[in-house]
Amino acid sequence: MRPIITLTTDFGLDDPFVGIMKGVMLRIAPEAELVDISHGIEPQNIRQAACVLQAAFSWFPQNTVHLLVVDPGVGGGRRPLAVKTGGHRFVAPDNGVLTPILDAAAARVYELTRPKYFLHPVSPTFHGRDVFAPAAAWLAGGTPLSKMGIRIHDPKTLDLPQPSFRRNILKGEIVHIDRFGNLMSNISAELLHRYFATQTDGLKIRVGGKPAGPMVDSYSRCQKGESGCILNSWGCLEVFCREAAAAKRFKSRVGGAITVTANRTGK
Amino acid sequence: MRPIITLTTDFGLDDPFVGIMKGVMLRIAPEAELVDISHGIEPQNIRQAACVLQAAFSWFPQNTVHLLVVDPGVGGGRRPLAVKTGGHRFVAPDNGVLTPILDAAAARVYELTRPKYFLHPVSPTFHGRDVFAPAAAWLAGGTPLSKMGIRIHDPKTLDLPQPSFRRNILKGEIVHIDRFGNLMSNISAELLHRYFATQTDGLKIRVGGKPAGPMVDSYSRCQKGESGCILNSWGCLEVFCREAAAAKRFKSRVGGAITVTANRTGK
Amino acid sequence: MRPIITLTTDFGLDDPFVGIMKGVMLRIAPEAELVDISHGIEPQNIRQAACVLQAAFSWFPQNTVHLLVVDPGVGGGRRPLAVKTGGHRFVAPDNGVLTPILDAAAARVYELTRPKYFLHPVSPTFHGRDVFAPAAAWLAGGTPLSKMGIRIHDPKTLDLPQPSFRRNILKGEIVHIDRFGNLMSNISAELLHRYFATQTDGLKIRVGGKPAGPMVDSYSRCQKGESGCILNSWGCLEVFCREAAAAKRFKSRVGGAITVTANRTGK
Repeated sequence: MRPIITLTTDFGLDDPFVGIMKGVMLRIAPEAELVDISHGIEPQNIRQAACVLQAAFSWFPQNTVHLLVVDPGVGGGRRPLAVKTGGHRFVAPDNGVLTPILDAAAARVYELTRPKYFLHPVSPTFHGRDVFAPAAAWLAGGTPLSKMGIRIHDPKTLDLPQPSFRRNILKGEIVHIDRFGNLMSNISAELLHRYFATQTDGLKIRVGGKPAGPMVDSYSRCQKGESGCILNSWGCLEVFCREAAAAKRFKSRVGGAITVTANRTGK
Repeated sequence: MRPIITLTTDFGLDDPFVGIMKGVMLRIAPEAELVDISHGIEPQNIRQAACVLQAAFSWFPQNTVHLLVVDPGVGGGRRPLAVKTGGHRFVAPDNGVLTPILDAAAARVYELTRPKYFLHPVSPTFHGRDVFAPAAAWLAGGTPLSKMGIRIHDPKTLDLPQPSFRRNILKGEIVHIDRFGNLMSNISAELLHRYFATQTDGLKIRVGGKPAGPMVDSYSRCQKGESGCILNSWGCLEVFCREAAAAKRFKSRVGGAITVTANRTGK
Repeated sequence: MRPIITLTTDFGLDDPFVGIMKGVMLRIAPEAELVDISHGIEPQNIRQAACVLQAAFSWFPQNTVHLLVVDPGVGGGRRPLAVKTGGHRFVAPDNGVLTPILDAAAARVYELTRPKYFLHPVSPTFHGRDVFAPAAAWLAGGTPLSKMGIRIHDPKTLDLPQPSFRRNILKGEIVHIDRFGNLMSNISAELLHRYFATQTDGLKIRVGGKPAGPMVDSYSRCQKGESGCILNSWGCLEVFCREAAAAKRFKSRVGGAITVTANRTGK
């Protein structure tokens, strides 16, 4: 079976940077299968990359190597990392982009310290090419993590936004807006059920203070253009407009508030 | 030989959806070769996806599996389909996106009914991941269509626009505008020849009522910026401006009229 | 080892053209590994494609076939070429796009003249599909160049902009602006060292007449939003703004002037 390497960057697809990294990886691991997850991360948006990572990695086969290069600190002091956890491996700068998978107690984190596995000279501006892509390829080709660096225990993590529950209001935020304009929140099905039991049809959901449509179990329950709420494919609360863009309707941005209350008057 | 799966969706490349489908497929069919056709279909534009399918599929090797996910009815009642025809296989929602290949009398159409070939739980919002990508991968891996569902005979088809010929005017429409701004019509070379014999240099072509340049056999016959007409790589009439965008010049949109008349006065 | 074919075009990723070329190549060379470098070249911008080629090709393994289709002269008289040099092979129209690799004295250039290796009928509008993709696939599959055409010695080359040094001013220009808004110049590290010795901290760099920040050895030496200059991953002078877009700051375009002088008063 061919080893798989996924790629997630903020490089876009117009510049040759992604292609160059692929060339480098195929020189080191000719048998690797290279799969793009996204190169459309906003420049330097570590948080967005972490969100995409969390949504995507677990759908790949065990032993996949996930390469993430969103690296505003390139050439500075930030460490290059490789991590093994849950049967997957990850290569990325130590800037918090790996936060979602570092939560796992079992994560083994290494700083990539062995110059033998870099391209030389290492440029100050493109560690994707000179440090991270080679590391991903060596890993995919079978080089053990422990040979490529030293174990560390203090990787940087982000304070990813967490929902809160106060005065009967569950408050989360928009963590991703997709191409369709759907508003994906960080409010999981599990949280909804914890605070509002198992019935979701009595919930009142607001986006930036504006009321959204009812909780449904299929987009098709709403009329075209109407808004509704659904538990989406990430297992989280999503606000949508059927065959339209909720982001436009609600003038929303990532980070905007989504609140849930039980729809009972007089309580 | 590795089995090939092509992908055509309206997911764009910024969100992780396409990558997630690829991960799912590589878990089921690790040997599959995944080839993107387009993920730039306008959200929910079934007609555009059908047009892209028609232009692209036959250039792939026999036995290729073509996965199309443009699916405004996801989670509702529309059926998931797999079709075998002309040595190719297709997986898509039953919303008309497969119209161009359903015309063939020999098409064998199946509704995907066997939950065994889905991912579970099936989310209400992303059947690309849970239903269609798995089906494409099982097919590519050798599972026969007949095992995955039941034969049906009433798949949904679109009324794709057909050219008409009345009062010596052949009237078609723009079915695709490409990145260069070329206007691709649904007027085939065969139609032109049927109504106007084999000489095309005496034809008068109009776009939205405005006269286009002459019929030529190479873009280079026109001066830079000038418009002309040509039989393009799809075997259809195309209006272009040399090294410029005809779509801008003629202020055209998909669906706009293109007419052809014989350029004879007094007739 | 699977043969590699890279793709660089101005086709974009929304239209099915790139997918169609891949289908054609996989019919001829099923074992080929297809790697996109860029399909975001501006329509008909041969110079930009040449720049991308120069930046990218050498990072791929020996024997890679590089397919470049930016082809404003399609269907006209320009010749289709295949070139072998430095262990790499290239397939492209004879319009100058291969200039960076034609400089090498050892380049062996062939005009693709053997119809046997084309798809028929050859359309007048899409030689990427009918001429260039097949040629790349035959090459990748092992067909020798000498079988596919005749040796020529007069391929077209572009006058790519060359830096000049007069009155103690080294003057180059912006040859590429990347997704981050970084301004990549054609002033190589070698040129800088030839004219200004090895010390770069005494240099004064201007973009379109406006002073840029100091020469540094890492983006992180500048404060967020501040501009600086660096020798980038292409070995050339680059003007950047840390975590911001220098192209916006300096209102720059490709072709704009970048000048370097020694920062000494009274000389």
